[in-house]
Amino acid sequence: MDLLKQSAANSSPITPVGFLERAATVYGDCTSIIYNETTYTWNQTNRRCLQLASALKSIIGIQRGDVISVLSPNLPAMYELHFAVPMSGAILNTISTRLDARTISALLCHSESKLVFVDFHSRFTVLEAFSLFPPEIQPPMLILINDDEDDVESSLFTFEFNLEFTYERLLIRGDPDFHWERPHSEWDPIVLNYTSGTTSSPKGAVHSHRGLFMATLDSLVDWSVPKQPVYLWTLAMFHSNGWCFPWGMAAVGATNICVRKFDAASVYNLLRQHKVTHMCAAPVVLNMLANEPGIGPLPNRVHILTAGAPPPAPVLLRTESLGFLVSHGYGLTETASIVVSCAWKPEWNKLPETQRARFKARQGVKTLGMTEIDVLDPESGVSVKRDGLSLGEIVLRGGSILLGYLKDPIGTRKCLKEDGWFYTGDVGVMHPDGYLEIKDRSKDVIISGGENISSVEVESILYWHPAIHEAAVVARPDEYWGETPCAFVSLKPENIQKPSQKDIIEFCSVKMPRYMVPKTVVFEESLPKTPTGKIQKFMLREKAKAMGTAARLASRI
Amino acid sequence: MDLLKQSAANSSPITPVGFLERAATVYGDCTSIIYNETTYTWNQTNRRCLQLASALKSIIGIQRGDVISVLSPNLPAMYELHFAVPMSGAILNTISTRLDARTISALLCHSESKLVFVDFHSRFTVLEAFSLFPPEIQPPMLILINDDEDDVESSLFTFEFNLEFTYERLLIRGDPDFHWERPHSEWDPIVLNYTSGTTSSPKGAVHSHRGLFMATLDSLVDWSVPKQPVYLWTLAMFHSNGWCFPWGMAAVGATNICVRKFDAASVYNLLRQHKVTHMCAAPVVLNMLANEPGIGPLPNRVHILTAGAPPPAPVLLRTESLGFLVSHGYGLTETASIVVSCAWKPEWNKLPETQRARFKARQGVKTLGMTEIDVLDPESGVSVKRDGLSLGEIVLRGGSILLGYLKDPIGTRKCLKEDGWFYTGDVGVMHPDGYLEIKDRSKDVIISGGENISSVEVESILYWHPAIHEAAVVARPDEYWGETPCAFVSLKPENIQKPSQKDIIEFCSVKMPRYMVPKTVVFEESLPKTPTGKIQKFMLREKAKAMGTAARLASRI
Repeated sequence: MDLLKQSAANSSPITPVGFLERAATVYGDCTSIIYNETTYTWNQTNRRCLQLASALKSIIGIQRGDVISVLSPNLPAMYELHFAVPMSGAILNTISTRLDARTISALLCHSESKLVFVDFHSRFTVLEAFSLFPPEIQPPMLILINDDEDDVESSLFTFEFNLEFTYERLLIRGDPDFHWERPHSEWDPIVLNYTSGTTSSPKGAVHSHRGLFMATLDSLVDWSVPKQPVYLWTLAMFHSNGWCFPWGMAAVGATNICVRKFDAASVYNLLRQHKVTHMCAAPVVLNMLANEPGIGPLPNRVHILTAGAPPPAPVLLRTESLGFLVSHGYGLTETASIVVSCAWKPEWNKLPETQRARFKARQGVKTLGMTEIDVLDPESGVSVKRDGLSLGEIVLRGGSILLGYLKDPIGTRKCLKEDGWFYTGDVGVMHPDGYLEIKDRSKDVIISGGENISSVEVESILYWHPAIHEAAVVARPDEYWGETPCAFVSLKPENIQKPSQKDIIEFCSVKMPRYMVPKTVVFEESLPKTPTGKIQKFMLREKAKAMGTAARLASRI
Repeated sequence: MDLLKQSAANSSPITPVGFLERAATVYGDCTSIIYNETTYTWNQTNRRCLQLASALKSIIGIQRGDVISVLSPNLPAMYELHFAVPMSGAILNTISTRLDARTISALLCHSESKLVFVDFHSRFTVLEAFSLFPPEIQPPMLILINDDEDDVESSLFTFEFNLEFTYERLLIRGDPDFHWERPHSEWDPIVLNYTSGTTSSPKGAVHSHRGLFMATLDSLVDWSVPKQPVYLWTLAMFHSNGWCFPWGMAAVGATNICVRKFDAASVYNLLRQHKVTHMCAAPVVLNMLANEPGIGPLPNRVHILTAGAPPPAPVLLRTESLGFLVSHGYGLTETASIVVSCAWKPEWNKLPETQRARFKARQGVKTLGMTEIDVLDPESGVSVKRDGLSLGEIVLRGGSILLGYLKDPIGTRKCLKEDGWFYTGDVGVMHPDGYLEIKDRSKDVIISGGENISSVEVESILYWHPAIHEAAVVARPDEYWGETPCAFVSLKPENIQKPSQKDIIEFCSVKMPRYMVPKTVVFEESLPKTPTGKIQKFMLREKAKAMGTAARLASRI
């Protein structure tokens, strides 16, 4: 028995890239991508990706292991690059189009990108980023992605900056019968994703072909994605590769509806026009869809997958009443995809809706691809009690955990510890039924009079207030309590009767223990957000800090 | 980039065994298994498997890597053993209950089984198998599986042969909070499956935890299995572990309907009684379901997955008209599960039904878990033309290919060659659209006058004859042609007007090239079958051989 080992036939490197050629065989004449007036079939998408990969190798001279960056919204080119870049043997680095030139410059330098594909609308930002390069470092080659190749402005730009190719003009020169570069090992890197951390400097999470193969299949099973769904791309592909769904949608032969930008009204139009069946949405998008006034029920069920922050119960209830079937999961840039999901129990359907929403806001259980998850006590390092109360750090092990951070052995060792766990830096509890619930990022926990307060928990209650649009709770320094909760809120525009600080505090007082009630409420026009739509708590924390110690309120314990 | 390697957190061994504890968390109170009057929940199944694993280790003294065999039909115990045995660290070896004592004896010796679980009805066969052991080898310990623990006959047997435990009495002594033995490496063996080869002596295919994890997830995605299906166990779990669906059904929290034995009427009853949504069926079962008279349409759609031999078009059409949704795939004991499947194209729905059936009978395209499939010319070793005509050997590489054959390095090297392919021994063609079609086992090809004749192709036409129930075509020696096709057929019982040999030959003459038309037709009561329901062609081949050279018929080319 011991003589039977892995061999070439059973250990050929697994990779999600091969899903494309299979899609071309099975779904060749079916629509792969729709973008405004542009439509491709899976045959065309496969041939275009092979062409581009071939051109990258033979015309640009891309070598195996080179990094290729891209700044683009959810255009067809962005989708294609998720296959074409690894097919050329290179590593794909997607960069958020919402970043400033300084950050983009830092990322392009750090990744040593050989080439950057740039959406026409981001061209000046990228040029500015180039200008910020240290003089001894040569900026990467720039290739423009246009909506319209015959656009005059774009031609002028190409001429002015002496750019040899646009995306389409490079692609057309490649060979559609190219034999794509398979990974030599399944542990070879395939993507480099910089985290949009809300505080610390960006870190480059590197994932392997194996990791993304596992993440992709795992997500398809977890979300029960059928064959040939119609998938709307609101979740940015530059955000953790759209949770691996560029590859996942090829695996099931979906129709991908690409959009450059959107608001609630255009999303609802697209849902109706294309009979969309599936979409992923950051919490901010879910919120936007829930708050759009005058929307009647959807003509067909739309499966919507959200992650990033637990959806507030009122948002969940509203979207479900419109015809969305909301699934909720948890993942990080470091886990490639959703690795904990709120698997729904049939008996929960009988519960009152607020209780249902409370259950649905929990992160849930490990997906099939994860080996183990746990919540560890930060002091002792052992599992916390499964009581839904004891806070600890969420740790994971399983197939889709990152290889490590690029050029950051200390950061890598800090999260991939010798005990075999990946440390998420998120704080959570384990419920008696084995479901995980996130309480906060480690740094977001508020410690008031020795009590740990989960800012997320306070926020989730604030969201029940009928006038509140967005809420974020951070620590405000306090000379007596150490810290007290300070709430920053924005109000719904349609509200005429604006609540006062006292109203909000009273609203909270009846719904949570006294020590958790915000001692300060600050009203803002809107809350500051990261490029991926997360509220930037560190900015609010600075603000709260600057406010100094809170005035003593009447209520003392 | 080169410094980023696999680490303990991202390379923790993948295994399908962990799906059970997840099912207990998510589907704890839902039904896992129904067998006659017995019903379990996923919580119970999880605890029972842990108990049994614990008892195997602490009471029986099973060590990591020991082989445990089982002879059982699809009872709850059989399902549980698919988890409990690997949870104890041991390797599961399922043996067909249809084998004779001599073969069982050979398998138990070859596998060096420490323990064999035996269904009550197989007890005497296994005792006989023990008696055939070479005197120097100690037979394994025997543990009886009973439908009813209080059964007198079984108690007498236990007493007479001084058996310490029955299945239930061993299980009850284990610890339901046992920490199960995780694999040290994902390449560790998990099952040993002897192939029911129709000719050669059985070979023991060994699969790894990784292989079955991949095979299971792959099959769930390929068959688009939703959450909580109701699954009817007609496919024997001792047949290639029921194509990995014991683990797959835990992954999706299914209700498993177990049955000891069945006929067409009882299957139809179970489908109605439990609102079955999914089932796998060997071709012989599909045939049985299609030929049951007086069946009205099913009240709900039943997804049925078949493999092993291409379903004859009339069988497909009949089952589909009843409400079955038939999927067809291809796999071998050596691939653990279905690795090529006839992915359906929406445009084919518009074709006439015979054309649809012809397409559905093709084996299809690789599943997502397979890296590559090809058909290689036996002479040159290069890919055959994609013309649907050029015959070659089907080769595969991908995640669920076996580790090798136990104690058979020559057999292992013969199928897992240095070129990185697994050689299936099956003969097929590649169609221009990239779909694979099996034409025969290598040894089943008939060579007549220098032309290669696929026996399967001739059979598929014979099945169109309204009076024919089963058909198998083999080579009959011929002094002029070398070989000629010889058809063995059994007729449908309800037919009063029996066709003659001449009728059958005339029926074929208008439907195939002259050289393919059977020169001999032999009518049989029924055709000889292997334990898994495959027609035993080697027996028919012997018969045809004994008939000597065929008499010259009028028709000469």
